[in-house]
Amino acid sequence: MREFLKQLTTAVAWATTEPHAMQAYRQDQCLIAEAGQPLAVVRPATVGEVVAVVDLCRTHAVPLVPRGAGTGLAGGANALDGCVLLLLDAMDQILEIDQVAQSARVQPGVVNADLDKAAGEVGLWYAPDPGSRALSSIGGNVATNAGGMCCAKYGVTRDHILALTAVLGTGEVLRTGTATRKDVAGLDLKHLLIGSEGTLGVIVEATVRLRPRPQRLSTVAATFPTVQSAIDVVQAFGREFNAAATELMDRTTVCAVNAMTQMGLDEAAGAVLIAQFDGADASQQAERCAAMAEGAGAEAFATDDQDDGSALMEARRAALPSLERMGSTLLDDVCVTPHRLPALIDAIERIALSHGVTIGTFGHAADGNLHPTIVFDPADDRQRVAAAAAFDAIIAAALDLGGTATGEHGVGSLKTPYIRRQVGDVGTSLMHRIKAAFDPSGILNPGRGY
Amino acid sequence: MREFLKQLTTAVAWATTEPHAMQAYRQDQCLIAEAGQPLAVVRPATVGEVVAVVDLCRTHAVPLVPRGAGTGLAGGANALDGCVLLLLDAMDQILEIDQVAQSARVQPGVVNADLDKAAGEVGLWYAPDPGSRALSSIGGNVATNAGGMCCAKYGVTRDHILALTAVLGTGEVLRTGTATRKDVAGLDLKHLLIGSEGTLGVIVEATVRLRPRPQRLSTVAATFPTVQSAIDVVQAFGREFNAAATELMDRTTVCAVNAMTQMGLDEAAGAVLIAQFDGADASQQAERCAAMAEGAGAEAFATDDQDDGSALMEARRAALPSLERMGSTLLDDVCVTPHRLPALIDAIERIALSHGVTIGTFGHAADGNLHPTIVFDPADDRQRVAAAAAFDAIIAAALDLGGTATGEHGVGSLKTPYIRRQVGDVGTSLMHRIKAAFDPSGILNPGRGY
Repeated sequence: MREFLKQLTTAVAWATTEPHAMQAYRQDQCLIAEAGQPLAVVRPATVGEVVAVVDLCRTHAVPLVPRGAGTGLAGGANALDGCVLLLLDAMDQILEIDQVAQSARVQPGVVNADLDKAAGEVGLWYAPDPGSRALSSIGGNVATNAGGMCCAKYGVTRDHILALTAVLGTGEVLRTGTATRKDVAGLDLKHLLIGSEGTLGVIVEATVRLRPRPQRLSTVAATFPTVQSAIDVVQAFGREFNAAATELMDRTTVCAVNAMTQMGLDEAAGAVLIAQFDGADASQQAERCAAMAEGAGAEAFATDDQDDGSALMEARRAALPSLERMGSTLLDDVCVTPHRLPALIDAIERIALSHGVTIGTFGHAADGNLHPTIVFDPADDRQRVAAAAAFDAIIAAALDLGGTATGEHGVGSLKTPYIRRQVGDVGTSLMHRIKAAFDPSGILNPGRGY
Repeated sequence: MREFLKQLTTAVAWATTEPHAMQAYRQDQCLIAEAGQPLAVVRPATVGEVVAVVDLCRTHAVPLVPRGAGTGLAGGANALDGCVLLLLDAMDQILEIDQVAQSARVQPGVVNADLDKAAGEVGLWYAPDPGSRALSSIGGNVATNAGGMCCAKYGVTRDHILALTAVLGTGEVLRTGTATRKDVAGLDLKHLLIGSEGTLGVIVEATVRLRPRPQRLSTVAATFPTVQSAIDVVQAFGREFNAAATELMDRTTVCAVNAMTQMGLDEAAGAVLIAQFDGADASQQAERCAAMAEGAGAEAFATDDQDDGSALMEARRAALPSLERMGSTLLDDVCVTPHRLPALIDAIERIALSHGVTIGTFGHAADGNLHPTIVFDPADDRQRVAAAAAFDAIIAAALDLGGTATGEHGVGSLKTPYIRRQVGDVGTSLMHRIKAAFDPSGILNPGRGY
């Protein structure tokens, strides 16, 4: 082991085995998932160094946990006992922005918002906008197939990846995908790597699709008497138009946001909807949405002002941090077909009552992707048990409605207990056989994802 | 073997081992790919019968070739010597159309156009429109990830598949995917099955996404002095708008279409572009496109008449059958990023000259997906050799431009020689290891696809 550590730390630009120095990297943002004690933390600067680390771990049968920006919400990048933590944050170069092809080639550590900023300088846009976009990096976004707010209109990370380079568990470097819009040459390895949560390979380069930057943005904020009435309007509006974002917050979330931000949102409302529209007819769409909301008993406000729009979206982005200030949180990430949202929200309200817990619910209404957030006092045994039971019950309710246990956060280590129920025995077993094809030694993020 | 055949033919609703009766099923539409002599042709009526066939073939190590409607263009459904040909055309029921969720659940033998017709009766649309849509079936469309004309705007078959049921090479029944818009639970087995050309599993059910049916359709036909000028307009137009189809035909193709259809297209033109537009501003888009074409020296004609529009699209759909009347054909399916189309077309013209062959080129300009079609006399040895060399050279040119050997037709048996060059040794070897995870006995369409 001593020899292994010596080889490992000399193989990369930066490494540490100091417990104190390693502490900062042991956990992602899912603070309730267990985190082990790593053997070493390494920060390669090149693909060659990543290969060297994989080869050493493979030879010595040491688990390897890749880590992007550490903003994951499912414990997928938490350390395993005795693992090597592989930091990708030093590989942070935008290698190319191709204005004509509308694509960019980037290293995995490039921060999502930095890529979008660079794209914006030439009038282009990197659309995928996870809540973490100011911090999270493209490698992690690809590994978790990150979602965001604009997905109903523009798709998720998966829909923006043209090609990938990954280091497999064998130490081989795989290049997969093309920059073309159509490609049916062989099995689609690219789509398999996307969302594989570090279990198949380490993403070391991505070619992503950029889009023309939307020129106009209009925003609507509407306070509805009930969650149901808000969802009805989102559904009806969706039959006519395609909103760029339709973000929903229930009363618990609105109160938490007010407490943190002093935004003064209407706490008497059953739900607040913040919707954004882009394109040539953005204003008209916003006016129409506001009118429909008013017709459903809401108070609605439409604006073309960019700063007002950004401020309203900030209120929504404050939802999770605001709830986190109220206690420990257990954050669900369930997703159903949008027309089943009322049934899901009914179920969540019943679960909150029957388990005696506080649940703030917010999320992406047009996607059917909600983040019911259970707030509890970790020092109170009853609350801790009730919170865990409510977390389970929400996932069970989503699965019963034909939905998924995780729409965009991933399985990580937090949600592995639910995967077999959702995916089935045949699917789970197949996933493990596929993992063995990519990673015969089983060193890449073992036990995570499935 | 006698016992095997007895068990096989009693396991399914319909089966034959008569050479004469089997003849009709030996080949798909790629007449130049080799076709072997099957042992039996079976037509199951249920998933249980498919499982029984897979189990028998697995036990007796007999290759199994799944076949949809037989419209493939790469020999992927051609018989292998001593194989069982598995016909899916009797499993042809639309099981459910869900108007609220905008989805349909179908058996694999449902013909694409029939599904679209049924969707249309409730105002919905099944968008993927391969040239074969009047004949080809959803199972085959999924297995080949079929493209079509509306892909640049609406995506390919992959983008319309929500969930799949497949019988693996192990005989297990895998259900994968959900009807939700987001799902990151485990490895994406659905995307791996799409485009796997019958090598991983037999698709026995698909849940597909339907869209609201576009209300208005406008069409432009424009005759350009050169192919280059047509592509320039498609590129410039694409920066402003999103056309529903941008179909291109070169002069050779136009002459062939005229010869077959007496449509009287302008044979002096270097290229004919037929573009369609949908949505509320379809008319304005068409007018703008026509104006841009005229500005580039084209004669252009815009119409909102649905019948005129359909007639113009029929001219484009006649391209391949028209060229096929001129001789035997070798149909390429290369795809590059759209801005590299001029370079690809240059290369194709040079290849036609240097190899002394006739090549008619048509395809999807906004996608960068072209179908250069080499026309030759199969009785002439020199022409046969030159055609094969030109076919190779076109693929090499596309790969050199960062493109793909096949944008939408698949690899089948025709294009396997090119896969290793495009995908690389690491990718090819990985594909075979993944196949082994799905099909450890190696009975499913062996040797095809990669």
